[in-house]
Amino acid sequence: MSAFDQLVQHSKKVSNFKHLAAISGWDQATVMPSGGNQARSEAMAELSVHIHQLMTAPQLGEWFDKAQQEELSNEQQAALRELKREWQQATVLPEDLVQAKSLAGSKCEHAWRKQRVDNDWQGFEANWSEVVNLSQQEAQIRAEANGLTRYDAMLDLYEPGTNSASLDVLFADVKTWLPSLIDQVIDQQSSLELVSPTGQFHRATQKQLGMEVMQLLQFDFEHGRLDESVHPFCGGVPTDVRITTRYDESEFVQSLMGIVHETGHARYEQGLPKAWAGTPAGEARSMGIHESQSLFFEMQVARSEAFIGHLARLAQKHFAEHDPSLMSRTNLQRLYTQVKKDFIRVDADELTYPAHVILRYEIEKALINGEIKHTDVPELWDNKMQAYLGLSTKDNYRNGCMQDIHWTDGAFGYFPSYTLGAMYAAQFMAAMKKTVDVDGAIESGELSPIFNWLSSNIWQKGSLLNTDNLVEQATGEKLNASFFKQHLMSRYL
Amino acid sequence: MSAFDQLVQHSKKVSNFKHLAAISGWDQATVMPSGGNQARSEAMAELSVHIHQLMTAPQLGEWFDKAQQEELSNEQQAALRELKREWQQATVLPEDLVQAKSLAGSKCEHAWRKQRVDNDWQGFEANWSEVVNLSQQEAQIRAEANGLTRYDAMLDLYEPGTNSASLDVLFADVKTWLPSLIDQVIDQQSSLELVSPTGQFHRATQKQLGMEVMQLLQFDFEHGRLDESVHPFCGGVPTDVRITTRYDESEFVQSLMGIVHETGHARYEQGLPKAWAGTPAGEARSMGIHESQSLFFEMQVARSEAFIGHLARLAQKHFAEHDPSLMSRTNLQRLYTQVKKDFIRVDADELTYPAHVILRYEIEKALINGEIKHTDVPELWDNKMQAYLGLSTKDNYRNGCMQDIHWTDGAFGYFPSYTLGAMYAAQFMAAMKKTVDVDGAIESGELSPIFNWLSSNIWQKGSLLNTDNLVEQATGEKLNASFFKQHLMSRYL
Repeated sequence: MSAFDQLVQHSKKVSNFKHLAAISGWDQATVMPSGGNQARSEAMAELSVHIHQLMTAPQLGEWFDKAQQEELSNEQQAALRELKREWQQATVLPEDLVQAKSLAGSKCEHAWRKQRVDNDWQGFEANWSEVVNLSQQEAQIRAEANGLTRYDAMLDLYEPGTNSASLDVLFADVKTWLPSLIDQVIDQQSSLELVSPTGQFHRATQKQLGMEVMQLLQFDFEHGRLDESVHPFCGGVPTDVRITTRYDESEFVQSLMGIVHETGHARYEQGLPKAWAGTPAGEARSMGIHESQSLFFEMQVARSEAFIGHLARLAQKHFAEHDPSLMSRTNLQRLYTQVKKDFIRVDADELTYPAHVILRYEIEKALINGEIKHTDVPELWDNKMQAYLGLSTKDNYRNGCMQDIHWTDGAFGYFPSYTLGAMYAAQFMAAMKKTVDVDGAIESGELSPIFNWLSSNIWQKGSLLNTDNLVEQATGEKLNASFFKQHLMSRYL
Repeated sequence: MSAFDQLVQHSKKVSNFKHLAAISGWDQATVMPSGGNQARSEAMAELSVHIHQLMTAPQLGEWFDKAQQEELSNEQQAALRELKREWQQATVLPEDLVQAKSLAGSKCEHAWRKQRVDNDWQGFEANWSEVVNLSQQEAQIRAEANGLTRYDAMLDLYEPGTNSASLDVLFADVKTWLPSLIDQVIDQQSSLELVSPTGQFHRATQKQLGMEVMQLLQFDFEHGRLDESVHPFCGGVPTDVRITTRYDESEFVQSLMGIVHETGHARYEQGLPKAWAGTPAGEARSMGIHESQSLFFEMQVARSEAFIGHLARLAQKHFAEHDPSLMSRTNLQRLYTQVKKDFIRVDADELTYPAHVILRYEIEKALINGEIKHTDVPELWDNKMQAYLGLSTKDNYRNGCMQDIHWTDGAFGYFPSYTLGAMYAAQFMAAMKKTVDVDGAIESGELSPIFNWLSSNIWQKGSLLNTDNLVEQATGEKLNASFFKQHLMSRYL
């Protein structure tokens, strides 16, 4: 067996254990009774250790050396590149740092759940200090190994090939037009009449509606499920993708759009190249590209006028006893495009969302690069929130810098993926419209032409191309924020 | 760390991986979409290999040698005995035999699913020949290692400490009175009027009813769930026990009693000693003792007149739109104690069930001991079926020797557990009644005195006692079939 084949075989073995981690994690978040949590957490921690041991097995170095001398096809070379990337990321950090960060992160995150409710910055800061310190050490080691700046080395974990120099350019551009656009749109919308949901929207009916919309979006129910969890996610494995939502019986609009979003993630997973299943080349390209698919479904497809027509029709069918004016096409359109300056990122609308992300990007970049101290964060947050959205978070940590889970366990470098995803999605749509009658497909309810384009240009590529090449082959150019701007202008003005 | 502690720590590690196997298995049987099956099976096979490697790790032999020199408490000595038992069972067979039997078993079982439907003995026999051959080899190796006969060595896997000499005595006794008792009861029952279920019994309502009965039986929903699967089972782990049932909407009586049965298994698991969790000493004593708990719930408690009164009351509440005469106490009692000679073991009633088991015991014992050939089985089956239940299975393989899954993959030695369970259950009830007002507890709906007895005498003992000691400490004597006979006489005559 060639060294390359040995690497692939080993990767599939690791993937089998990751499969079990994904399913146990889904179970824990959706159906596990609370009393099962301790034993489950111990079992999953044991599994993590085993996976890490496999991923850093001593024979891998020699296999990589040999495989690089072997004659490989272009695809095999790409697969080898991704295998090596994953291996280097797993092996570059000393074990004691990995363990220390994991412990500090768990402790900080666990305490944060209560501290956030209590607006307890002092308590949080005491734990977070160590998380930041260890993350800076991690960034330093990764930076030296990869020849990147510290923050870029963290960013590379989520967005391989993307760096802060290019993000600075992209986001500087957004900052020139976004704040005034937000003000303008809010002003325009202030005169619109809105019917808000009243009464009870039964969870079982919401689920039926959600599943009908998933069918319209061609979710493959032979290879996936819809369930409930406190925090919606897309989990499982490509042959069995588990998406979740949560239902609020006082309205249906949020959960419904949440299902559309997760369906986008799910169809990417379901559409990944089977030939490379169980290896990194068969996985999603990056967090930003993953988000581009969920946002393509949510923002590009489902918030279009034509798709909102379908949502209106289906909602009226399932909630026939409710006020139909709530579910008119116009009213749903207004509900789904309402813009509001607010504190919380996860509740933000399409237009204000990038402001939340840019703020976090600027702060975490300075923090990881050692330009600011972690104690500077609340004031910086307040300044930027005032500048971008005109809101003060002074002494309001719970709705300010303590609102997200990401930083509590040291996931620095993740936030840009959200807005990169929105930008990629807009660019994909612009490119798709050159060859596909997108509006016609949505109007007809037969959306296959859209999914065929995504499948052949994005899903089927897995990680065989780097991100720049993927985007260039699909759209004819590298990431260009003007498509995103154009999309927002045309939808909101 | 002492060698004993090292063994315990290692066992807990193995147990963590078994936890993941249990949950992935539950998922596969209950919620997994069909398209996920191949990847799941591969992941679970990978996990099995890993568990087997851990259980046969080379350092264990030395640890056992050292641990046997260490000063251990009585409980620790018992725990060590069980650890060693499990280790010896895992290591005694050569790898190639394990693998060959696993392959032959999978192949035979898979083909059997269709062959049974087609009544295709020729096709089945061709595959089964190898399963029998390899099982005989397994039995031979286990027999030599343990100083037992071949069949007893297989029996020991499921019923440690039980042997065919004692089973022969128990079953010979049963055979003297069971056939005539069955005839007598059938004759008596022929004049009874029965109201059979008609109309539709919605699955959601059946589930509500089932869960209410589980509450009456004090199932701990903080540490377990009820779900649906094609073949009902009790799975999961002691901190998170997953029982399943299947609903037939044309009636509710079978599924309801099935839930009671699985609840018995589940409460045993939930009640196992936490101090020994993750080691064999903290596991159920044997398959027969496990079945004694499910049958205690099903036969001793739930088929009592007082409990059927509760079932009648709850069924009438949930199925208020149905004919109440169906759900009268008397009619439910008659439905739940109806005796009928029939071909299929899994559908058999309490009275004919032992005949099905004894028949299988006699045949598999002769087969594994090499006294008959596998091709002799159909004729033997027919002869014994005629003798015990007056039914011919000539040329009717599908309802004869091809009806069970157990033999298809070589699980020889398991069948006696069912009837041992019924006998243990009857003996436990007789002993319990000496100190507990069982009828009063059931009548009142506050069944704690019953469960307290089971907990302190059975559940909390785990595998710290051998089976004979467990039964003697709980009941004052070893297994004695007269309690079972007495129970059947008093219920059915």
